[in-house]
Amino acid sequence: TVNGQALWHDLVTTAAFGGTEKGGVCRLALTDEDQQVRAWFEQTCTALGCTVSYDSMGNQFARRPGTRSDLPPIMMGSHLDTQVTGGRFDGILGVLGGVAVLRTLHDKGISTNHPLEVVNWTNEEGARFTPPMLASGVFGGAFTEEFAGSRADAAGITLRHELERGGFVGAEKCGQHPAAAYFELHIEQGPVLEAEERTIGVVTGVQGMRWYEVSVRGRSAHAGTTPMPMRKDALLAAARMIEQVNAVAQAHAPDGLSTIGIITALPASSNVVPREVRFTVDLRNPSEPVLQAMEEDFLQRMQDCAQANDVQVTVTPTWNSPAVHFDPRCIASVEESTKELGYTMRDIVSGAGHDAVYVSRVVPTAMVFVPCLHGISHNEAESATPEDVTAGSNVLLHAVLKADQV
Amino acid sequence: TVNGQALWHDLVTTAAFGGTEKGGVCRLALTDEDQQVRAWFEQTCTALGCTVSYDSMGNQFARRPGTRSDLPPIMMGSHLDTQVTGGRFDGILGVLGGVAVLRTLHDKGISTNHPLEVVNWTNEEGARFTPPMLASGVFGGAFTEEFAGSRADAAGITLRHELERGGFVGAEKCGQHPAAAYFELHIEQGPVLEAEERTIGVVTGVQGMRWYEVSVRGRSAHAGTTPMPMRKDALLAAARMIEQVNAVAQAHAPDGLSTIGIITALPASSNVVPREVRFTVDLRNPSEPVLQAMEEDFLQRMQDCAQANDVQVTVTPTWNSPAVHFDPRCIASVEESTKELGYTMRDIVSGAGHDAVYVSRVVPTAMVFVPCLHGISHNEAESATPEDVTAGSNVLLHAVLKADQV
Ligand SMILES: NC(=O)NCCC(=O)O
Ligand SMILES: NC(=O)NCCC(=O)O
Repeated sequence: TVNGQALWHDLVTTAAFGGTEKGGVCRLALTDEDQQVRAWFEQTCTALGCTVSYDSMGNQFARRPGTRSDLPPIMMGSHLDTQVTGGRFDGILGVLGGVAVLRTLHDKGISTNHPLEVVNWTNEEGARFTPPMLASGVFGGAFTEEFAGSRADAAGITLRHELERGGFVGAEKCGQHPAAAYFELHIEQGPVLEAEERTIGVVTGVQGMRWYEVSVRGRSAHAGTTPMPMRKDALLAAARMIEQVNAVAQAHAPDGLSTIGIITALPASSNVVPREVRFTVDLRNPSEPVLQAMEEDFLQRMQDCAQANDVQVTVTPTWNSPAVHFDPRCIASVEESTKELGYTMRDIVSGAGHDAVYVSRVVPTAMVFVPCLHGISHNEAESATPEDVTAGSNVLLHAVLKADQV
Repeated sequence: TVNGQALWHDLVTTAAFGGTEKGGVCRLALTDEDQQVRAWFEQTCTALGCTVSYDSMGNQFARRPGTRSDLPPIMMGSHLDTQVTGGRFDGILGVLGGVAVLRTLHDKGISTNHPLEVVNWTNEEGARFTPPMLASGVFGGAFTEEFAGSRADAAGITLRHELERGGFVGAEKCGQHPAAAYFELHIEQGPVLEAEERTIGVVTGVQGMRWYEVSVRGRSAHAGTTPMPMRKDALLAAARMIEQVNAVAQAHAPDGLSTIGIITALPASSNVVPREVRFTVDLRNPSEPVLQAMEEDFLQRMQDCAQANDVQVTVTPTWNSPAVHFDPRCIASVEESTKELGYTMRDIVSGAGHDAVYVSRVVPTAMVFVPCLHGISHNEAESATPEDVTAGSNVLLHAVLKADQV
């Protein structure tokens, strides 16, 4: 088993890089804070006998040699970037759980056949550069390196620029990295394990998710002189569309989810009726056919709403991550490890996207979930117990050792 | 009568300072573009025999001497700042119409008893620094100079800083400027004159207007893992409030107006349910008691909507400009001048706020309206005909000469 105290200490340490007053973390991808945590990760893993390198997307690999140099590595990992008002566990636990595994092997002098690697994937959150899972997406062949590098943040700064600024561009081309298996430990970010009082979620797959950018165009007009019936108010129309986006999820309850996270009205002056409103839409469902039906429903509702409100609407798809089913042998390793360790468990489908989604396209993959407080995530109040994160890391350790035997 | 061609030429010239591709103007208060148009105004008026000075709020006064040095000036004017996507007439016509009056007197060698002044009021639009009519508000005693100077734009830059940067802080304290009368020429910014095919609006007053800032607080949550029934979505609640704000105007039709011009959702990430949404509200009515009833209706609806959606709401009043009735003698001067010139006309209440609103608190005031295309304003497509703007300036000339006789 892993050293739970050392793991918790690492979680507290990393929470300081970009730590917020409310106890959360604001560590957007490739910012100065992210540079700091990357340096800490390199130092920590080097002290555990690893060599640390980058690929061309800034993905950070800490490698512990195996006894058989002909075998590809078994990878663990997740991401160290966070949301603007993010928590201390989302992503971070998957990297630090991997470090905890390395530490156990190091402390006990255990060697493995395969080399072991802990990976910190660049820009998983999608909060600074959209879409999410951008660098693991390049690794898994979902995006080209050119596309990913050209993504710009709200200030217009590109991911490529920020990779170079940090000195994170490695010689190895992203994706040219053979691996025997990939295991990602993560907090559930949802309420199921806590509600059922189970310690471990054996993740069988990840639901499908689609993103869109909606643009609603009306006509700007003076707030004091334009009679209500003469207006083409893009924001009033958008408000009605928001209600309809919500209705899409309700029409596909209980699994259908819809979210609008960003909205902007132009020209953004208190005494001007908005001429244009832009908002994002996030639709999710574990079933691809149902997700497809949700999309069609959504598009129809937007058109109907635009027509009823005498405005123009354009819906642009910006991301499509289909539902994923993980590797049966990797899932079995997680399940058997959990049984051996005597933890309560259940199978679970992930509601959130993870680097494992894209890595699973090229490497046999599975995930381990542990409960988090009230299922709250993407929120500074995100919380998990020392017992649960230790249990998850123990499962990770055993699953990796099992894969090493195969 | 004024030289209509020279007036039109001035309108075309000033439209170039901050001119946009779509034929509108983006000349926010005290930006570089505003500095340029101020320099042009000073040069133009100096060439017409005026001296140009600033008061402590950067209000720009071009003064043509009268024959009797004991008399206070008769003022004309409006503003040269615009909305972000503003037009070429809103405000500008009132200043350039004043310049046209000066030009006629200059060209014909006519002298007046009173000195005449054309004033360019600072930051009328409220688009860069809220609230609108900020410097004429200090002139009229509605705001203190400290309050006005401390107003900051979206980037946090204060009005005081920008006044100093431009060298616009004059020795005369704002408000210590006696005047015999004030006449402001403006496009109607609404559809009435055009629809009734009348050339001149004799403005008897301005409707009441109130501004609020609404903050809606829910709980941020993960878009992929948080079941719909467990969400406290601040944006969904805000969308329903937008519908209710619209209903406030509908409940007080046809005169009641309500507008939401600015909206922001936080933390503004595509995969995070918004924890907070802020939006502005602009309520207007020509009758103060009805406006008061609209406010009470609005506050109640916000509370009800917050409760129904399990979110918190705070409504903060940010501006209150009560309904105004202009000076009967000044109104009569405008009406008689219009009759003499043989233009069609009607009495009208302004839907938009104007510098005249606050100036009227300390100086006998009236306004002259001319039609604008389809009533469109606060829009780059804003338009008016050479004939109408010339007619308005002629009325301005006659009204000023009438006031000079009294
Ligand atoms: N784990 C996680 O929060 N990833 C972000 C991608 C998503 O929106 O699901
Ligand atoms: N004239 C004008 O558009 N003024 C801005 C103040 C208002 O919102 O009415």
